[in-house]
Amino acid sequence: MYDVEKIRADFPILSREVNGKPLTYLDNGASAQKPQVVIDAVTKAYAEEYSNVHRGLHFLSNLATEKYEGVRGIIARFLNAADENHIVLNSGTTEGINLVAYGWAMPRMEAGDEIILSVMEHHANIVPWHFLRERQGVVLKWIDTEVDGSLDPQKVLDAITPKTKLIAITQCSNVLGTVVDVKSICAGARAQEVPVLVDGSQGSVHMPVDVQDIGCDFYAVTGHKLYGPSGSGAIYIHPDRMAEMQPFIGGGDMIKEVSKTNVVYNDPPMKFEAGTPGIVQTIGFGVALEYMMSVGMAEIAAHEAELRDYALSRFKSLNWMNVQGQAPGKAAIFSFTLEGAAHAHDISTILDKKGVAVRAGHHCAGPLMDHLGVSATCRASFGMYNTKAEVDVLVDALELAHELFG
Amino acid sequence: MYDVEKIRADFPILSREVNGKPLTYLDNGASAQKPQVVIDAVTKAYAEEYSNVHRGLHFLSNLATEKYEGVRGIIARFLNAADENHIVLNSGTTEGINLVAYGWAMPRMEAGDEIILSVMEHHANIVPWHFLRERQGVVLKWIDTEVDGSLDPQKVLDAITPKTKLIAITQCSNVLGTVVDVKSICAGARAQEVPVLVDGSQGSVHMPVDVQDIGCDFYAVTGHKLYGPSGSGAIYIHPDRMAEMQPFIGGGDMIKEVSKTNVVYNDPPMKFEAGTPGIVQTIGFGVALEYMMSVGMAEIAAHEAELRDYALSRFKSLNWMNVQGQAPGKAAIFSFTLEGAAHAHDISTILDKKGVAVRAGHHCAGPLMDHLGVSATCRASFGMYNTKAEVDVLVDALELAHELFG
Repeated sequence: MYDVEKIRADFPILSREVNGKPLTYLDNGASAQKPQVVIDAVTKAYAEEYSNVHRGLHFLSNLATEKYEGVRGIIARFLNAADENHIVLNSGTTEGINLVAYGWAMPRMEAGDEIILSVMEHHANIVPWHFLRERQGVVLKWIDTEVDGSLDPQKVLDAITPKTKLIAITQCSNVLGTVVDVKSICAGARAQEVPVLVDGSQGSVHMPVDVQDIGCDFYAVTGHKLYGPSGSGAIYIHPDRMAEMQPFIGGGDMIKEVSKTNVVYNDPPMKFEAGTPGIVQTIGFGVALEYMMSVGMAEIAAHEAELRDYALSRFKSLNWMNVQGQAPGKAAIFSFTLEGAAHAHDISTILDKKGVAVRAGHHCAGPLMDHLGVSATCRASFGMYNTKAEVDVLVDALELAHELFG
Repeated sequence: MYDVEKIRADFPILSREVNGKPLTYLDNGASAQKPQVVIDAVTKAYAEEYSNVHRGLHFLSNLATEKYEGVRGIIARFLNAADENHIVLNSGTTEGINLVAYGWAMPRMEAGDEIILSVMEHHANIVPWHFLRERQGVVLKWIDTEVDGSLDPQKVLDAITPKTKLIAITQCSNVLGTVVDVKSICAGARAQEVPVLVDGSQGSVHMPVDVQDIGCDFYAVTGHKLYGPSGSGAIYIHPDRMAEMQPFIGGGDMIKEVSKTNVVYNDPPMKFEAGTPGIVQTIGFGVALEYMMSVGMAEIAAHEAELRDYALSRFKSLNWMNVQGQAPGKAAIFSFTLEGAAHAHDISTILDKKGVAVRAGHHCAGPLMDHLGVSATCRASFGMYNTKAEVDVLVDALELAHELFG
């Protein structure tokens, strides 16, 4: 039995008020709140157990290193990677995808080579590929969504040509909530020897993930959306791809030896982790994943599916509300505009007065906004601690906004 | 009057024991401990005020954005930058120097161009330049230290040729404690139109810094050595250089518009800050700098100079101890070996038993180790909260190590 009230009690910020109203936090797509166990882990790491990692032999350094390095195994378990050395620790998805762009793609792509993207990608999974277009003449090929916001895996596979060197695709749209059948895409792409990068920023938050079952080459996650600290993250990299990569960020830890004339790089995954890492935020990230797994990823997914269904049933009666994306099995992420109403930013301001935190804007998804023919939407995105009662609060606030602007 | 006991009371970890002894933390060169105000700021940010920044309009997003963006001004004040927009926020020095390597140096250097480095550089200020050597045929020119560990600025300037495109140099050696006259180097280099990057990882911790007075083009700092959270940092970039730079990490926030065919980048400094940043650690970094400034950078420098002089006077009587680097005005950073004694790692293990945390190894300074003809040293590095009594504890522990291994 999923006890959402018990879960809510674990997140201190959820009991605060905003503008005199209880906080209804529906901005999880941008970043999730943190449970007390994560905050406590961060506090303890700084107040009792802090040191730099890897480079020392004293007590605190050993302790911090053990805790930090332990997170690699937690992430491997969370993603069901075959080995913790398939996990590169970093500061989030943006760094992870840039690592692939600079470390794997740039050295092996030339003018005319193609990268296939869906039109739903987040800028983190677009701009690094635009760099390759601008700097090396790589061609970006875009796959549009269907009318309901779903993505046909076959259309992705049909776009493959002998020039295709990579497919970079999200598992779950941060705007539409669409869940992409990345497993079918990976199977079809593998048959044609095209590697697949999956942006798991949203997908990993809302469903159980098994990178071996998906069969992807790269799977990027970001800690702050996974109820962990800001500035934490990781990317799963298939060992065959990892072996093909050149280093990206240069500095300490990613080397074995440095002389005036030469560098001998460290073995993967350390080869791709430079400098003093985000020690404490990574430790907190591990605690966040343990917390999610203790609740159960399938249970979280089922709870959020209930929220999605309830929200959709409530939205149905708001005939002046346009929800973008109705793909079957979508996540509880709702981008919308209100007919006759003011700009998305004005709507979000009204909602804020009622304590409801939603995002307004392009959601870092420019091509999708163009595809949808909108400049901005509001987005309500749910997480593991949200409730049906909060859906009702949202609907009440939307009715007020409609009344004021309608 | 510098009240070191009052300062110590601000750092909770300093009252803990290690191996049954009071902690004597002398590993500040690797990373510094955090005052309670920093830990409290981090806790509060997560427990009461957390949201993603820049992208929202709701209460928490505005609050987090205001706190996060406020840090840019604090850093500008700390470094005396002319404008807070000369500050790029990042995860630390390693990212900062890689930004310069990828964003400024790579697009403008060709085979045969030269970068001048001192032999004392940290790997963070070496490996990014080795990338340019490996990938573009750039030539690295190394300036050796004098016998006492000092660096003659004139030797740096004499190495300039028409091929020299950059000088990259530390303000303070993390191994020897040598303070480099970067102001003279910048003045001489500017006369020949050679930009200078100053690695301020150590320098900014131990002395007042004024980037305008120094006259550098780039000045990189790292939050975790400045008593701030792990994964925080910044780099000062002269606006003329900033205008010459191409983006490095691609993602959200660093763009104005993204379409299928084009990207319009944001204005600097945002152009160089991609994705969800290290929100909470940056907020904590600001609090750490405020804390340092409230104590006073000149006062901290004076306190550490006293510690240095006291330590040197005590070490003088240990005629089996070889301290590397005796440059006048050096920071309180002591790398040493013990005659007849075992490996540096064994010494650090003995010290650890006495609660004394020192580092042992190459200190991420391979070329300097080669230059000194050692494979590893122990390093005791002092910070604002260390005391003369801790020097005595260190000396007692060294005597024990000498007794055991001598």
